[in-house]
Amino acid sequence: MADPRRRRKRAPASQDAAQSPPFITRTAPVHDILSDEQAVAIEEAAEDILEKVGVEVRHEPSLQLLKAAGCRVDGERVTFERGFCRRLVKENAPSEFVQHARNPEKSVRIGGDAMVLVPVYGPPFVAASDIERRYGTLDDFNNFVRLAHMSPELHHTGGPICEPTDIPVPKRHLDMNYGHLALSDKCFMGAVTSKERAEDTITMCEIVFGKEFVANNCVVAALINLNSPLVLDETMLDAAHVYAAAGQATVITPFMIAGASSPTTVAGLVAQSLAETLAGMAITQLVRPGAPVVFGFMMLGMSMRSGSPIRYDETWKSMLVAGQLARRLGVPYRCGGSSSNSKLPDAQSGWEGAMYLLYSMLAGANFLIHATGTLEAGLVANFDKFLIDCDMLGAASRMMSGVDTSVDALAFDAIAEVGPAGNFLSCAHTMARYKSVFYQPSNADGESFEQWTAAGGLDSAERAAKRRQDMLASYQAPPLPAGIDQALRAFMDARRAVLPDSFA
Amino acid sequence: MADPRRRRKRAPASQDAAQSPPFITRTAPVHDILSDEQAVAIEEAAEDILEKVGVEVRHEPSLQLLKAAGCRVDGERVTFERGFCRRLVKENAPSEFVQHARNPEKSVRIGGDAMVLVPVYGPPFVAASDIERRYGTLDDFNNFVRLAHMSPELHHTGGPICEPTDIPVPKRHLDMNYGHLALSDKCFMGAVTSKERAEDTITMCEIVFGKEFVANNCVVAALINLNSPLVLDETMLDAAHVYAAAGQATVITPFMIAGASSPTTVAGLVAQSLAETLAGMAITQLVRPGAPVVFGFMMLGMSMRSGSPIRYDETWKSMLVAGQLARRLGVPYRCGGSSSNSKLPDAQSGWEGAMYLLYSMLAGANFLIHATGTLEAGLVANFDKFLIDCDMLGAASRMMSGVDTSVDALAFDAIAEVGPAGNFLSCAHTMARYKSVFYQPSNADGESFEQWTAAGGLDSAERAAKRRQDMLASYQAPPLPAGIDQALRAFMDARRAVLPDSFA
Repeated sequence: MADPRRRRKRAPASQDAAQSPPFITRTAPVHDILSDEQAVAIEEAAEDILEKVGVEVRHEPSLQLLKAAGCRVDGERVTFERGFCRRLVKENAPSEFVQHARNPEKSVRIGGDAMVLVPVYGPPFVAASDIERRYGTLDDFNNFVRLAHMSPELHHTGGPICEPTDIPVPKRHLDMNYGHLALSDKCFMGAVTSKERAEDTITMCEIVFGKEFVANNCVVAALINLNSPLVLDETMLDAAHVYAAAGQATVITPFMIAGASSPTTVAGLVAQSLAETLAGMAITQLVRPGAPVVFGFMMLGMSMRSGSPIRYDETWKSMLVAGQLARRLGVPYRCGGSSSNSKLPDAQSGWEGAMYLLYSMLAGANFLIHATGTLEAGLVANFDKFLIDCDMLGAASRMMSGVDTSVDALAFDAIAEVGPAGNFLSCAHTMARYKSVFYQPSNADGESFEQWTAAGGLDSAERAAKRRQDMLASYQAPPLPAGIDQALRAFMDARRAVLPDSFA
Repeated sequence: MADPRRRRKRAPASQDAAQSPPFITRTAPVHDILSDEQAVAIEEAAEDILEKVGVEVRHEPSLQLLKAAGCRVDGERVTFERGFCRRLVKENAPSEFVQHARNPEKSVRIGGDAMVLVPVYGPPFVAASDIERRYGTLDDFNNFVRLAHMSPELHHTGGPICEPTDIPVPKRHLDMNYGHLALSDKCFMGAVTSKERAEDTITMCEIVFGKEFVANNCVVAALINLNSPLVLDETMLDAAHVYAAAGQATVITPFMIAGASSPTTVAGLVAQSLAETLAGMAITQLVRPGAPVVFGFMMLGMSMRSGSPIRYDETWKSMLVAGQLARRLGVPYRCGGSSSNSKLPDAQSGWEGAMYLLYSMLAGANFLIHATGTLEAGLVANFDKFLIDCDMLGAASRMMSGVDTSVDALAFDAIAEVGPAGNFLSCAHTMARYKSVFYQPSNADGESFEQWTAAGGLDSAERAAKRRQDMLASYQAPPLPAGIDQALRAFMDARRAVLPDSFA
């Protein structure tokens, strides 16, 4: 196995990496909407739930750990002494941690004032202006990884950006892990759909980073969804145990549809979510005290007319509230994205995604999955939307820095120099800043109607499709030492030889 | 003249008015991003500008008022004793005021925790999925007024929603005022392009509201743009004098393009804007102490490559900063909108508009012009975008209310009743709320792909065009007493007989 610290020194600083920071460091304030009294009321409601209702833990190893820790276990139902989970998490889970990338310049800090933008996660379908809506393939998946790698607005390549449905389910994780590790040198997310797939992920990380490095550092994050209301299932807890035991990051996220798997009221659904998250996080800290763990929040509303999942003010408010509670707990926070219910990357997709994204950022998300969002409320990874969203992320990310009120920024001398009816275009204050002061989007069009018409009169989705083709044509894989590549391929071949070819 | 108080009693409460409040009362917090020290630094910089650089006032009556008040006047250049304008505004201008609509149920409060959403203002062009981009006409203008009247998300019909370019410029204000007053019973904005057009606006208001009522109440608002940097021009000050003298509202708004008419830095451009606004507001208070006046802020960035106006993070941050300063001054605040640089109501239009809008709301805008925004950074009023934006306003407006953390909202009993792995669909807590708890959009599609395809597979702009046709087909004018209508028409005929037919 290679020594990752040696590789570190050899890795050349690419121009991209030099120009764009590996994650956002927030200096602007978050947007807290609860008073302290309101926050306490929700925390106490979560304790009521943990104490009096409890959670159902469908996982024998977790039940044994909980019993040993003194929790009341009755069959699969576990109830907790008031404050037990909270104390366990507060005393053990790190308030922030580093996830290491194979290119150390792209390692990310998760928690505190850091914000990491992560692509869309999990849709079975793909589409674009030039790709009719269809099931995703490994080619699509790899292209998404390439685009995420090339987009400075994204700090991570995430997990299943789309599902590679042409690969049998038991083998799919191998190809996805390989795509993340070989086609990009940013951080990524591992497989969670079974214990052995999680173990395979750790092994592949060990091949790339070295066994010792993985034993002592976080190199992969795993999304652990809970089954609201109040159920922690076997598959997810199996995966959580593998990652936590290996000191790798878990992102514990109840998945709620309000009115179905949670109450409809913001205070009630966040209380339930907090109870669920606390139970899940506590289990990771029983598996390995100090294992990095993220407080996840994910909630959809429901159209009470059609039953469709929707994502409007109740979702946005709930994210703000849950973020405030995560900070009070002192752990990193995951929420949000820029997903939309729309079928197309149209105006609806734009405004729904933008509002969801801004409130995710204002909620203080530290780990923002779906930063490039889904269409159809989760079903579709649209290539056009992916690049349009990257453009939007660029502008929104600049809002995470505060305002400079230095004498220089106050610009009195420039204002006095230019005077009434003057022009700032050629004054020194402007000349010193004009190249960097304003955001320059890649996709959004700011030209005149005449220029835009002359350039073909394309809408933002059509422009994104052209840009994708240009980007993929110029893609260059970040160097991966041949020995590592061979070792990864040998491991995958060995695993493929024993895994079944099922598609369910 | 009719007695407006009598009319008030007769006016029937329409079902719409009963269902939707006439304006938003904000209970959620604004998003302040400056520390107190930073706010003071910008305020002091504005005082430096007013004291040491001054403003150019191209308006003899204003110069006379300023001289009489003890300001230093040198030709058209006016410099102010430190704190003079601020004191004059703080001591005289109301912190909030009511603009009366001819239907008293639609009167709006402007300032404090009230937020009034006002349509797009001023574009010469119109377009839609079914209307090729062309100059606006009076028919277009009237249709926009009808749509604003029918849209519960809008609290005002604004001013020139589009320019009716088929009407000669000197007569255009008559038709626009008539459209606002006859086709809707919401509040509106008056003409500002000359002294006599402002006077005609007041006269038409007197015909509708009664002379005495207008003398004692605010019934019309006027947008007074200043010519940054540091120029207050004759036309705008003429109009400001007419409205302020009549006790009507002025919205004093520097119009800045950063890097051209202001510095590029947020702190510098807001300091200059504050100086300009303070000078303009002070003049209104010299004309008539206590006249309602709004602190306006409007700023575009500039693409330093193409020179195009752009509206990204510098604009959004500046709006937040200016809003904080307006609250410190204690006057109502105008900013924002949902405008976009896009040529089409596409994904770019959606996300640019949504981010601009959300930050306008988070900035605490009390009077939010362009709530349905322009395309092409101000040139186009697009009918599709108008209705898409109304849909977005509905969702965003719900974010202006806080979070309920009552025992009922915490929903412990419902969570205990449903328990792990249960379903909230049929529980009493959900049943009591399902009809109102989630936002139900009018334009945004939340159905399945199959349902959406079966319904024609339309994008949000195409759906908006259909909806517009349905809305206009069902439009009913709010009753206007025949005597008032005749008096308005007689006044317009008399004015038309003496006004020239120029189109410039």
